[in-house]
Amino acid sequence: MKLSQIGERKLTYNVTKKFSIPYDDCAFIDMGKEYLLLTTDLTARKTHFPEGATFYQMGWYSIAVNISDICAKGGEVIAYTIAFAFPRNMEENEYEELLNGVDACIKKYGGRLVGGDTKEADDVVIVVNAVGKVNKKEFMPRKGSRPGEAIYVTGSIGRGGSALIDGDMEKLLIIKPRIKEGKILAKAGVKSCMDLSDGLASSLYQLMKMNNLGFRIYEEMLPISENAKKHENFMELALYHGGDYELLFTISEDRGKELEKVIDIKKIGEVIKERKVVMVRDKKEEKLENKGYEHFR
Amino acid sequence: MKLSQIGERKLTYNVTKKFSIPYDDCAFIDMGKEYLLLTTDLTARKTHFPEGATFYQMGWYSIAVNISDICAKGGEVIAYTIAFAFPRNMEENEYEELLNGVDACIKKYGGRLVGGDTKEADDVVIVVNAVGKVNKKEFMPRKGSRPGEAIYVTGSIGRGGSALIDGDMEKLLIIKPRIKEGKILAKAGVKSCMDLSDGLASSLYQLMKMNNLGFRIYEEMLPISENAKKHENFMELALYHGGDYELLFTISEDRGKELEKVIDIKKIGEVIKERKVVMVRDKKEEKLENKGYEHFR
Repeated sequence: MKLSQIGERKLTYNVTKKFSIPYDDCAFIDMGKEYLLLTTDLTARKTHFPEGATFYQMGWYSIAVNISDICAKGGEVIAYTIAFAFPRNMEENEYEELLNGVDACIKKYGGRLVGGDTKEADDVVIVVNAVGKVNKKEFMPRKGSRPGEAIYVTGSIGRGGSALIDGDMEKLLIIKPRIKEGKILAKAGVKSCMDLSDGLASSLYQLMKMNNLGFRIYEEMLPISENAKKHENFMELALYHGGDYELLFTISEDRGKELEKVIDIKKIGEVIKERKVVMVRDKKEEKLENKGYEHFR
Repeated sequence: MKLSQIGERKLTYNVTKKFSIPYDDCAFIDMGKEYLLLTTDLTARKTHFPEGATFYQMGWYSIAVNISDICAKGGEVIAYTIAFAFPRNMEENEYEELLNGVDACIKKYGGRLVGGDTKEADDVVIVVNAVGKVNKKEFMPRKGSRPGEAIYVTGSIGRGGSALIDGDMEKLLIIKPRIKEGKILAKAGVKSCMDLSDGLASSLYQLMKMNNLGFRIYEEMLPISENAKKHENFMELALYHGGDYELLFTISEDRGKELEKVIDIKKIGEVIKERKVVMVRDKKEEKLENKGYEHFR
């Protein structure tokens, strides 16, 4: 069977099963009072970046998506290593632009680049490894939701999808990871959090599996981005398209209301006992599809 | 200018300069009594693996070269993350073989796989990130050689080069990193150590720059591997070909003699004040070329 018939999530699942790895944004290693957080993301020019993306944007993006994973755990980044594969005929100024994007993102969000590797390949491939840390008490796994809790997201959704359609590379790739929000959520005791890189519906299904419960969201509550609303299929973009890099989490109704005063978050629904992911639209409950952006598909 | 006109080492040097990164096998982060060691290596099927290499061997190799970097610092591996890029038409059994190679190498040398990423690209690219640790007192940087010390290597050299010519993928790719030796050297107080992945001459030049002194080696002392000796150009293979993954280090004459009783190491020359890398052959000193395996060249 070809990998294209299997798909990214099944492939990833196979690896996590074979090596007994928790299915999460980050790996975490016990260091006494803290967890060391490890995450790695591979981006390839051909499959991640549309025509028109600049090398600066690629550099920024490759760092920012890793920071987003650390944010989803409530942590902060200490260091990065980067492995680059470049084609022989790449221009020096392209490579310099890429490094400038990397540099700018690190300067803005913290941590430092401590090492890497540069090799030759057919296409541009950038692999960033971020190392972070988080106080054990503030660590947010993906598991920990309880029925009755409210579901929240930070910021707005549908931005990634509409930016892709609009060809707006700046909005698509200059991701602004939710560092401040992640830390505040962690200190507030949030126990189930992940980033929305795979899209809202897919993320809710992933949380459903891990928590063995369900989620009911409400169409009218969704904070759809203004840019997404310009498109007829904005609901499709908000639910099933990835690339938003907002945080999705659950918290008690009361504490959620407190947090609303401090950070830009919005309640979108509630955690339910039944193992399903549904959306209420015109007072009718409909099942969401378990789909989102997936490689090899 | 194209990257092929610049070459891997210059490219890498540019990155280390821009981000003020020490030029070393591993990055190290202060964690109190220990250093956390970070290393990352990218291997691409097209540019790293000759025809005939199995996916199992690629998996093993991609892990083992990272372990070798940790060994060169006297450390031990705690954890790995891996980012894979695979083409759409790759077969499931190839992917499973790759994971089996990864698994076997980790089982043999320790640490555990804690996370990763799987994405789509034109060719197979494997990026392994290893996280290790070492007691600060036992950390071996690349800098620390003193004139008068003896230069040593573990095992034998020229194996990588001859395996490549012979098309012996098992010898070329099933690398056996010098974990035991690295730890013993670290406890013995060795302060200047690196692995021979870039080849002996190139490695000596790298140590020359960092230590601001020179190295004199002796042809007759070099532990050339039996397989390399079958080739007419065995000296070329031993000096200028990479892929040996032995450890190169300097130590006082006395302590070196003590260590010879415990591990398989051989003295090959001495550290000198003058900033040059030379080899004595037929009682005459000749300058070694600063060349070794380099990507983009």
